[in-house]
Amino acid sequence: MAEIVRSVKGTRDFYPDVMAVRRWMFDIIRDVSTRFGYQEFDGPCLEFIDLYAAKSGEELVKEQAFVFSSPGDDMLTLRPELTPTLARMVAQRQYDIPLPLRWWSIGPFWRYENPQRGRTREFYQWNIDLVGTEAVAADAEIVAVAATFLKETGLSSEQVQIYVNNRRLMDEALSSLEVAKELRPAVFKVIDKLDKLSEKEWRAYALEIGLSEEQVGGLQTLVNAQDLWLKSDELVEFFELIKIFGLEDYVSFNPKVIRGLDYYTGIVFEAFELGGESRAILGGGRYDNLVADVGGNRLPGVGFAMGDVVLELVLQDAGVIPEKLGHTPQVLVTVFDEATIPESLKAAEEIRNAGYRVVVHPEADKLGKQFKYADKLDISVAVILGPDELKENLVAVKNLKTRDQVTIGRGELLSQIEKFLPSLP
Amino acid sequence: MAEIVRSVKGTRDFYPDVMAVRRWMFDIIRDVSTRFGYQEFDGPCLEFIDLYAAKSGEELVKEQAFVFSSPGDDMLTLRPELTPTLARMVAQRQYDIPLPLRWWSIGPFWRYENPQRGRTREFYQWNIDLVGTEAVAADAEIVAVAATFLKETGLSSEQVQIYVNNRRLMDEALSSLEVAKELRPAVFKVIDKLDKLSEKEWRAYALEIGLSEEQVGGLQTLVNAQDLWLKSDELVEFFELIKIFGLEDYVSFNPKVIRGLDYYTGIVFEAFELGGESRAILGGGRYDNLVADVGGNRLPGVGFAMGDVVLELVLQDAGVIPEKLGHTPQVLVTVFDEATIPESLKAAEEIRNAGYRVVVHPEADKLGKQFKYADKLDISVAVILGPDELKENLVAVKNLKTRDQVTIGRGELLSQIEKFLPSLP
Repeated sequence: MAEIVRSVKGTRDFYPDVMAVRRWMFDIIRDVSTRFGYQEFDGPCLEFIDLYAAKSGEELVKEQAFVFSSPGDDMLTLRPELTPTLARMVAQRQYDIPLPLRWWSIGPFWRYENPQRGRTREFYQWNIDLVGTEAVAADAEIVAVAATFLKETGLSSEQVQIYVNNRRLMDEALSSLEVAKELRPAVFKVIDKLDKLSEKEWRAYALEIGLSEEQVGGLQTLVNAQDLWLKSDELVEFFELIKIFGLEDYVSFNPKVIRGLDYYTGIVFEAFELGGESRAILGGGRYDNLVADVGGNRLPGVGFAMGDVVLELVLQDAGVIPEKLGHTPQVLVTVFDEATIPESLKAAEEIRNAGYRVVVHPEADKLGKQFKYADKLDISVAVILGPDELKENLVAVKNLKTRDQVTIGRGELLSQIEKFLPSLP
Repeated sequence: MAEIVRSVKGTRDFYPDVMAVRRWMFDIIRDVSTRFGYQEFDGPCLEFIDLYAAKSGEELVKEQAFVFSSPGDDMLTLRPELTPTLARMVAQRQYDIPLPLRWWSIGPFWRYENPQRGRTREFYQWNIDLVGTEAVAADAEIVAVAATFLKETGLSSEQVQIYVNNRRLMDEALSSLEVAKELRPAVFKVIDKLDKLSEKEWRAYALEIGLSEEQVGGLQTLVNAQDLWLKSDELVEFFELIKIFGLEDYVSFNPKVIRGLDYYTGIVFEAFELGGESRAILGGGRYDNLVADVGGNRLPGVGFAMGDVVLELVLQDAGVIPEKLGHTPQVLVTVFDEATIPESLKAAEEIRNAGYRVVVHPEADKLGKQFKYADKLDISVAVILGPDELKENLVAVKNLKTRDQVTIGRGELLSQIEKFLPSLP
């Protein structure tokens, strides 16, 4: 026997039980996105590297993108993020698309990272954006979408929290610390590293980029100023609006949140697991120049992205993934012998047309073996059409969970299945 | 203004209107697959080239696969098809998976082909397989799944037809034409080329691979023998079973169908558009050694694959794509002025929680402009909460299709929307 061909490091095989979780998460994403009136879109998985050179963080493009050449073409990239594609697509039709636009998408992305718990090289990402308005109501809506999603997965506000900050507010605060304008992007990176370094390392890093001892002290006070948001009219309005959505438990101010990507200009936010490994689940913010950067007009927007890998770990650890996920078969129609196959197929088609998920055992076999097969697939109801039943126009229906079995008239098949499976999917 | 960055040749941008069609097709695929009791799975988009070397057609691997190297890794491939991944995943867990297994999947695939109408380099493909049985009932079920799908898109049996053949039957027929066993795979390719070459070219090709004049004549008779299937017990049983599904109008015997891929061993089939450009929509068949070829045990199976690009063209030309596709927003809550934003957001959240897809205009603007925005998004209902309405606890609701507008008590908002939007999604 040959050796089984390996799979590629950092990729995942989605067997049906794993796929069911991904589908459950994606269905909530789709439901929340569309209820907020967002329209689904998608871009290509392959883009030219130039698209990302414009505005993605340097690390993302230089170190993490899968780049390769294809015959006769320029350097291609497996998309590491969606926002530049969104910007390109909006720029291409900037005079035709009704604004503001609300678009969402879900699909595969690739980053050449070191695979570890919570990090794969191939992953799925939800992207959602509201483009064409500077209104704070747009910022609040996007954060409300994120919070509604987290709530609908079953996560409580004790388990997750969306931390919000505002780069403009931080910029003003840095100005009052007399941090030079040119230095501020570097200081944003210093803030971003706060929880990733030890205090000693962090101080050294802050001094190294050119801050004075006094400024480092001021920065430490700043990132712990829990009331700082009251100085930002935008944030005051933002938190008022979040209350209207009834989501204030899920959203709070946090001056340490700044986001790594270069293109954010206003509000920024990240959802974190509380306790546990306190992992970042999703992140986003307001950008004002993204479309212009790929060749379109200036168009302000706000949005976020959420990967599936960390989310799934958080959901698992929180114990909120339902045990029985939809879309597994509900009914097995058994096959007694070769001669009765047509009658079994007929019954299956009848049950299927009533809306149930039905499998037929494709070969005649011992009934006990067929029931065991149904148990392995977690099927709840088995239908038996043996020669005895067929002779008298009867059918036996077995509830595989309770092991109850009834023999009824063939015409009552559907109503009996409804009794055993009362709640249709 | 900078030039807009180009998109990659052979890829597609899915703007919301285009995405809605893709989503509509995918939803029917999901519905049909799960009703037949199939479980969704997925593999990685990246695989090692070795996986395809085992059994995919030579053309597919050598000429059409996107192959590239990543730092420290072997040659990677963007998957050109799913079946080898299915085989690998089954081989990895061959002692744990309850057999027969019914799995389906949909996702992106890549082939380096010359982009043209009906052909892109990045496309989506539905794969569905029933593995672990040699029963003809399995072959019939898989073809019934394909026919049910085509029927549910709205295509009639005058517009599409699934042509079925059997490689074993053809092998026997070639044997009676005294075609040497070694030559038969090449003759299968000759049959596959029948509709792709002129008669003259085809004869020359058939002679060139080593057939005699007499054998070529015999082959021409063979591929026109409409009753040949009666000589195959498998096909006789197959067509009996197809009748039970009530799908006999969609399925017919055609000795010209043979399929290009090497791994098929029994029944083979292809769905074709009738008339028009008579494009192949989907194709599949029975394979008996696929899992063994990647290092597992011998495990028979049957399945098919369908790309989204040709399907969509056929559906468009047949005029069966519904004009109004779901998931676009249904209600616009207008914003009268800055002061009323909170009341507008409250109303939107109330309507959303009742299950409707709702957008709020994020900024105060002239009502006429907001109605025009709603028209562009094909929204049916607008809600108006101006200072006059708010003072008297009223709300105005406008049917944007009929231009009717009513002013009602604030508490009747939901029931009025239900009147204007009677059929919930």
